[in-house]
Amino acid sequence: VSYDVPSRLEGWHVRHRGAASLEVSDFFLREENLAQPDEGEVLVRTRWLSLDPYLSFAMIGSGDSGASWPVQGRIIGEAVQSRAKNVPVGSTVLGTGQWREWNVLRGADVDVLPGDPHWPSTVHFGVLGASGLTAWVGMTLAAVQPGETILISAATGPVGSVCGQIARERGARVLGIAGGEEKCRLAVSRYGYDDCLDHRLPGLSDRLVAAAQTGIDVLFENVGAPSLDPALSAIVEGGRVILCGLAAHYRTGDPIALTNFRLILRKHLTMRGFAWTEHRDMHPAGRAWLTERLAEGTLAYDETVSTGLPQAAEAYVAMLFGKGLGKHLLQLP
Amino acid sequence: VSYDVPSRLEGWHVRHRGAASLEVSDFFLREENLAQPDEGEVLVRTRWLSLDPYLSFAMIGSGDSGASWPVQGRIIGEAVQSRAKNVPVGSTVLGTGQWREWNVLRGADVDVLPGDPHWPSTVHFGVLGASGLTAWVGMTLAAVQPGETILISAATGPVGSVCGQIARERGARVLGIAGGEEKCRLAVSRYGYDDCLDHRLPGLSDRLVAAAQTGIDVLFENVGAPSLDPALSAIVEGGRVILCGLAAHYRTGDPIALTNFRLILRKHLTMRGFAWTEHRDMHPAGRAWLTERLAEGTLAYDETVSTGLPQAAEAYVAMLFGKGLGKHLLQLP
Repeated sequence: VSYDVPSRLEGWHVRHRGAASLEVSDFFLREENLAQPDEGEVLVRTRWLSLDPYLSFAMIGSGDSGASWPVQGRIIGEAVQSRAKNVPVGSTVLGTGQWREWNVLRGADVDVLPGDPHWPSTVHFGVLGASGLTAWVGMTLAAVQPGETILISAATGPVGSVCGQIARERGARVLGIAGGEEKCRLAVSRYGYDDCLDHRLPGLSDRLVAAAQTGIDVLFENVGAPSLDPALSAIVEGGRVILCGLAAHYRTGDPIALTNFRLILRKHLTMRGFAWTEHRDMHPAGRAWLTERLAEGTLAYDETVSTGLPQAAEAYVAMLFGKGLGKHLLQLP
Repeated sequence: VSYDVPSRLEGWHVRHRGAASLEVSDFFLREENLAQPDEGEVLVRTRWLSLDPYLSFAMIGSGDSGASWPVQGRIIGEAVQSRAKNVPVGSTVLGTGQWREWNVLRGADVDVLPGDPHWPSTVHFGVLGASGLTAWVGMTLAAVQPGETILISAATGPVGSVCGQIARERGARVLGIAGGEEKCRLAVSRYGYDDCLDHRLPGLSDRLVAAAQTGIDVLFENVGAPSLDPALSAIVEGGRVILCGLAAHYRTGDPIALTNFRLILRKHLTMRGFAWTEHRDMHPAGRAWLTERLAEGTLAYDETVSTGLPQAAEAYVAMLFGKGLGKHLLQLP
């Protein structure tokens, strides 16, 4: 295969808006130069972009309205030229690159993917990558015991869907929160949940207290105030909150307002924020568990795929609004 | 001494206002009956009321505007009649009673105070009681290590003032937040603080980051958003937050809004709410430490005393606004 490598190409940028809410119109394409790979670098043709909620932090910036940011996220692509010993030409790599068709990346910063014929490379973004390992590390920190009740928000997201399956295997009663009847149905039928509550229906707080029965022992929070505030009403004294994500608050820098923040004090709760990357000691066991179940075909996961670089901004904002299911990806043809 | 025990007397009540802010005008005196002590009960003449911030939870109620609550808090008084085996007539007792001159209490629910001649009975509300043990338990949970930096809000309050002295003895660098120059000066001169920042001056967040130098390892939070939000800017990755009080939020049921709540996630923090009463295993060591230092005269504490039952509402609200120093008490003549 020979490629026509351009010297100039279009890449996505986003205007910082500080506290204001992120919109499709904040994104724009800008033409820029493509460098030649230097010693130790590789030229990568992008095949997939991972549309990750946490990128919003950088997108909205910190009040410096007017500046802009060249969007960089996790990409999977083909190494078309390589001056890095660890990266053979033609291999599939995962790294952090700009949202554009070509990137020059340092060989030391990319992972060469094994190219297993049994599953698509995109599992390394999701179920065998950050999402799956986040779920594994989170469930390990949650230390959920048989017979305990765990509540997981964003139950059908790329993390929540794996959490449900791990928590079920560990003998917990698994409750979820998701947006819409269809997602709630899938949480129970595919992802190991005993019950899933639709946050779009009224009275979530009362429904949570009822569904929790003797109370929620562990809350695994992916969303923020819309689920955390009512969930705190239903958590037991001495309960644990594992804070994995704040997806509802990534689009803006607005304060996060919680009426039930007081219950952290009054119920003597422990809340712990984490990222999978700070617990590398847990990764081998997590990778083994995930790989084994993926190979057996007993690990359910979903992807929502959009196509074409021009769709990136719309696909990204739709993901933030909870459209689609599982891991959100953009495929470059 | 013979007493004229009334059959009717005035007691303080407070109108619930739900989410609205607590005001002096919400309090009112109402005449009510005084029962005779039954078997197992004692008749107590009130000498001291403890004006504790946590009472506000019950005072503001939970949205059931219009109802009212007979204010009950911790009292110290004299057992004038006793039908309880554990309470001799004439002894000084600490229990929970209404804010009025007389209460009939169950003997099983009161502590008979030792009547040590070396210190006033009010130390059992404060430095040898709930405040001192809260500080001890909190510092034990904080597990502050030599060389670590701890930040304590409400630095000169009844809890913070003891925390500062414990943390200093444990070799930590001790930073405080307090309201006004005078309190900040006392924090350093009396309570073991290395430095204390005045939250009434502008730019608290920047001043905290500067004072923290390499960052705050442990935040001991007594106040809520006004100190917690800026302190989260200055805390280290993997830092600990011990949540002891939310004094800024007791007067209302309004949501607690934190811009930096996100940092619990991004800095992988652990936040733990506690009350001294759930850690009884720590009390003997705490009592021993506090008693020893009190006997030596090396434990600094302060009391703010108001006089006369009619002053109770004003004294209580003034305490909530941070007037005065240390433990707030009302003395009945």
